[in-house]
This record gives sequence, structure tokens and C-alpha cells, in this order.
Amino acid sequence: MIKTAAYGVQTETSPVQPMSIDRREPGEHDVAIEILYSGICHSDIHQARNEWGGNSLYPMVPGHEILGRVSKVGSQVTKFSEGDLVGVGVFVDSCRHCEACDDGLEQYCEQGMVPTYNAEDPKHGGLMFGGYSERIIVDENYVLNVPENLDSKAVAPLLCAGITLYSPIRHWNVQPGQKVGVVGLGGLGHMGVKFAAAMGAHVVMITTSPGKAEDAKHLGASEVLISKDVDDMKKHVNSFDLILDTVPVPHDLNPYINLLKRDKTLVIVGALDPVDIHGANLIAKRRHVAGSMIGGIAETQEMLDFCGEHNIVSDVEVINADYIDEAYERILKSDVKYRFVIDIASLKQAS
Amino acid sequence: MIKTAAYGVQTETSPVQPMSIDRREPGEHDVAIEILYSGICHSDIHQARNEWGGNSLYPMVPGHEILGRVSKVGSQVTKFSEGDLVGVGVFVDSCRHCEACDDGLEQYCEQGMVPTYNAEDPKHGGLMFGGYSERIIVDENYVLNVPENLDSKAVAPLLCAGITLYSPIRHWNVQPGQKVGVVGLGGLGHMGVKFAAAMGAHVVMITTSPGKAEDAKHLGASEVLISKDVDDMKKHVNSFDLILDTVPVPHDLNPYINLLKRDKTLVIVGALDPVDIHGANLIAKRRHVAGSMIGGIAETQEMLDFCGEHNIVSDVEVINADYIDEAYERILKSDVKYRFVIDIASLKQAS
Repeated sequence: MIKTAAYGVQTETSPVQPMSIDRREPGEHDVAIEILYSGICHSDIHQARNEWGGNSLYPMVPGHEILGRVSKVGSQVTKFSEGDLVGVGVFVDSCRHCEACDDGLEQYCEQGMVPTYNAEDPKHGGLMFGGYSERIIVDENYVLNVPENLDSKAVAPLLCAGITLYSPIRHWNVQPGQKVGVVGLGGLGHMGVKFAAAMGAHVVMITTSPGKAEDAKHLGASEVLISKDVDDMKKHVNSFDLILDTVPVPHDLNPYINLLKRDKTLVIVGALDPVDIHGANLIAKRRHVAGSMIGGIAETQEMLDFCGEHNIVSDVEVINADYIDEAYERILKSDVKYRFVIDIASLKQAS
Repeated sequence: MIKTAAYGVQTETSPVQPMSIDRREPGEHDVAIEILYSGICHSDIHQARNEWGGNSLYPMVPGHEILGRVSKVGSQVTKFSEGDLVGVGVFVDSCRHCEACDDGLEQYCEQGMVPTYNAEDPKHGGLMFGGYSERIIVDENYVLNVPENLDSKAVAPLLCAGITLYSPIRHWNVQPGQKVGVVGLGGLGHMGVKFAAAMGAHVVMITTSPGKAEDAKHLGASEVLISKDVDDMKKHVNSFDLILDTVPVPHDLNPYINLLKRDKTLVIVGALDPVDIHGANLIAKRRHVAGSMIGGIAETQEMLDFCGEHNIVSDVEVINADYIDEAYERILKSDVKYRFVIDIASLKQAS
């Protein structure tokens, strides 16, 4: 990989080109943001390495967990002023007139949301570049206000990992005292534990690793259930109100489905790959398996406000830009507690 | 197999015994029913042939789609009188005090519903015998009123096949004009088409068999979608409000899941075996896969009343008791339109 002023990722099959970092002036509805921190999402690795069916577009600047300050606003911008602390997440535009957009669920836009990077820019042509960069320009309707009281270096992962868990917890209407399971303790799972606990749920971390028990409780879990312990799993059958499965690789969902009460749901937020489901486990209790993908703009703002009130951020390891390759390798080994964040100042120093 | 006065099914490993058909007097809350017709459910075959993990109890009298007339009532019975036309379905008792029973969802009783046959009688000891028989005694709380205006020979399958489709159509709140898919045209599927059409839905029969198109439309389907036709399937992507999958064998659900709109559900009522699901297909539109099992007593009564108002019965082929073995073989070849019903008078003549 070749690093440039923006952290462009290129492969051998994609000739090195100068990064065409967007130095244009913001349009009348745009906000220009000087980036402070950029989180590293597992999906950055898949896209940088062209592992999603060959859909990667190079040169690529990954990054869709972005925290920064507004440096300039377009003439018609009303929501933001210079100096505001703001965030940008997984998408930067959508069609704005389909049923999903009308419902504030831009992530499910029927025309397809416009991703923050690895896409053609539908307005200006060229490629969209993400957060491993000094600057980004985004329409004000797709920019979030970030509470100033939060530890800013740990905010960026809220824009993807955070909202990915917050949205299903809200959508499935978790109430105080309800029993909520979180399967897998990583970048996604640790946010699920924090949010569900902050909402008063009885949170059970479900993991294959007994070594994660202490951390899980520190994050807010009331109990830890080791999924390899058949007897312990039996004790929890038919007892959960919601289970959030954050495991990013194919796995057997059936032992977790059987933990649900009647009419309750296991939500997949991690696995994109095939999972085996025994119909009988669904039929026996009218149980559901569903999927959920990040969140809409209004809900992401709600989450950030909730984080401000409850002082919730991600647990992060802040790195310099020259550590990204190593960070990718460590993510693949689940060797991070729980999210890497790039200090963009290190990128400016290097350039 | 050996036939007796009740149609007892026995295997070579189960020595022939006289059937201990219940000739006791009804208890104070019981209703004695002279059976007129008994439907044949696919699950009868699995149980008669001990294909469900060795859980079959012999001697066995299958049958849980029962239509008959009350011949005698216990001293405390208030809901029924001698001569009433009544039905009995898949279960004849439940714990009556768990959350499911309190919610009128006895089929999901947390202690386990008491099945109509192939179980030990929890009150009187011995085995429970089902509907391939002259008579059955059932607690009045688990007996249904059957409207007299319906064609009685075609009513019995409503008690299992009917409620299996009616319940999810109601639970997922199908509204007039909504687009409802029914996958598979058999004993279950044909009831799904009738009910959804009667409720004003735009019903699409989804089948692998172009030969079933005409029948499906006759039953009430507005459209027929041949699932092997890739182009036609593409036209229906993201368009369904509910899909009811009645296919009883393992199959790929993903092409059907992709037909659902955002936030909508594919309900499995047929397959008990593993099904592959691609997490990405759920996540992309917050879609659900769920299971549903028959229905509670109150909902089964509601269905029968609905059938009375809309003149809905099953499409049946009425057979004599000596045809049961052949009927089983024909069911396994999907060679029935759409449910076999045993005329119990033929059993009386034979005995």
C-alpha cells in the first residue's frame, strides 16, 4: 500500500496516482470539515483489499467514522457554523424522496445511500474520499452535531460502530429491566453493552472467550454467558428479550435463537455471510431473526445526544497514520480494545 | 401397518395390541364427540412412521384435524350442548397459567401444549388417541364451535392447515391491498391463498411449478410468480409486505427474502429443517425471518367464524379409512388437491 497526504490505499493492480483530495470550495449547502480523528472499521479493510466482490474503486481513501471541526460553511447552510464539532458517518447523501428517506431511514434509501468513500461522486464526478484525510466536504443534512463534553478522540467510532448497535436497541424498543444479549465483544459488541446498560437493560455478554468476562462487566454487562458452556446455555433458554449478534464471520445462530423468549428477535449486525437456521427453532416460539444496518441521520444525532448525556464514547486505541497497516493486521486478529482511531494530526505532520 | 376399529398405526417393532379407545364417560368439563371427518396432515406421516427423532408412541391413532358432533357433555360444561358441530385441532390441553396461555397462545404453552395424539394422557394415564377414530373426549376449553353453514366434509383441515396460515396473516396484520406472497401450493399454501385473498390482499402464489398457475388463480391468487424465472423474480424484489413460506423441505430462502420490502417478514410455517440465510439480505432492508406454529384457541375460533362468514373451507379429497396407506404415499408425492379427509363413517362400517 502507498500512503499519501490523504491515506490513499492502492493495490498493485491500480497504478499509483496523485490523490485528488477535494480542495474545492463548499457548495451552498455544504460544510467543510477539518478532520481531527478517523476511526478504523473492519469494512475499511474489506474495501481497501477489494474483498467485496471486486467493487473497490482506486485510488481509495477509506474512513467513515469521522470527527472534525467545521472550517467553512456554504452560503445557504443553517445548521452549522465555523468551529462546530461535528461528525460524519457511513453515508453523505441519499435520494431524499423515497419512503425510506421520508421515514428518516436514509441508510435504507431505495436509490441506495451515497457512501462516504469507495463510490463515484454523484454530484461532482470523480471518486468520493473518506476520513483517513485532512478534510472532507459534506452536505449539511448529512453532518451530525457532536457534544463538546465528550472525549473527542473516542467519539469517531460512534458514527459507525456506535449507531450500528444503538439503532436496533431503539428500534426493538429495549426497556429498563429487559434482558438483552450481546454476542461477541469487539468494536461493535462493546458499544452494544454500553448502550443497553445505559438504557437500564440487564445486559448479558455472550462470548466464546472466558477471558473477556472481566472486561465485559467493566463495560456494563450484568452477566457473562460462555456460549461453549452447554449447561449454562440451557439455563438461559427462552429468557432473552433481544439478542444483538455482532460476530462478523459465519457461525451457528441456533444456540442463540433458542435463548429468545416467544416473539422476540435476534438481530444480526455483523455477519454478512450465510448462517444456518433451523426452522423449528423459529416456529416453536414465533421467534424472529432480523438484520439491522447503521442508522438514519436523525437517529444518529439522537445517539450522539444520548452519548453526551450519559458520557458514552468508544474504548479506543489512538494511532498515528503510519500505523494503519499494522492496525489492520491486529483488527483481523481481534487484537484491539476496541476500536483504532487515527489521529489525523499525525497525517498532517507526515505530509 | 395394522388397522383396527380406530385406525391404529403400528410398526413391526411395536407388538400388535388391542386399541384402548377411550370409552370412559366424559369428565365434568369434558365434551364427548362423535367424529365425522378427520383430515390427514403431513405430520401424521412423520409420527406414524417414527421419523421425528424416535418420539413416536405406539399404538398410535393419528389425526389432529377433527370434525364431529357433541354426543354428551360433562356436568359442568357450559360452552357446548349435545348435537353441536365442533372441531378439535392439534392440542387438547395446556398448563393454563403461563404467560403464553394467559395471552391466549396455548400453542406456545411454556409447559408444552398437550398434543391431541402421540402423547401420554397427563390426566388419565395411557396414551392419547387422535382423530382417525370414532370418538374423542376433550375438555370444553379446547373444543371449537364450527359454523353449520360450511360444507362439513371440508372443514376438518381448517383445524391445522387452516389455522397455521390464518394465524400469521392476522399476527402480521395483513391489510387490504397489501402484497402477500405464499410460497408453495399444497395443503398449507392453498389455505394461505384463500385467507389472504378473503382479507383483501393482493396475493401472489410463488411456486416452482408453472402448472399450478391456473389452480392458484382459481383459489384467489392475483398473480403467479414462478420462482425459477430469474427475470420475473427481479421484478418483484423489495415489493412484498409479507411472505408465507409453506415448503416442508429444506430450501434456499434468500431469493424470497429479497422480495420483501424494508422491515417486512418472511414467515416459515413449513420447514422444520435448516435453511441458509445470507445475513446481508436481512441487514440491507432490516428484513425479518420468523416462524409461526398453528394458533391459539381463541384465534382458531375467530378463524372458524371468519370461514363461516366468507364460506371458506379446504379443498379436499374425501377417502375411506382403507385408503389411508395410499393417501400417505400420494401426500409424499404432493399428489392431492389439497388435503385428504377420512370419512369416519367408513371406519364404523369396517369395524
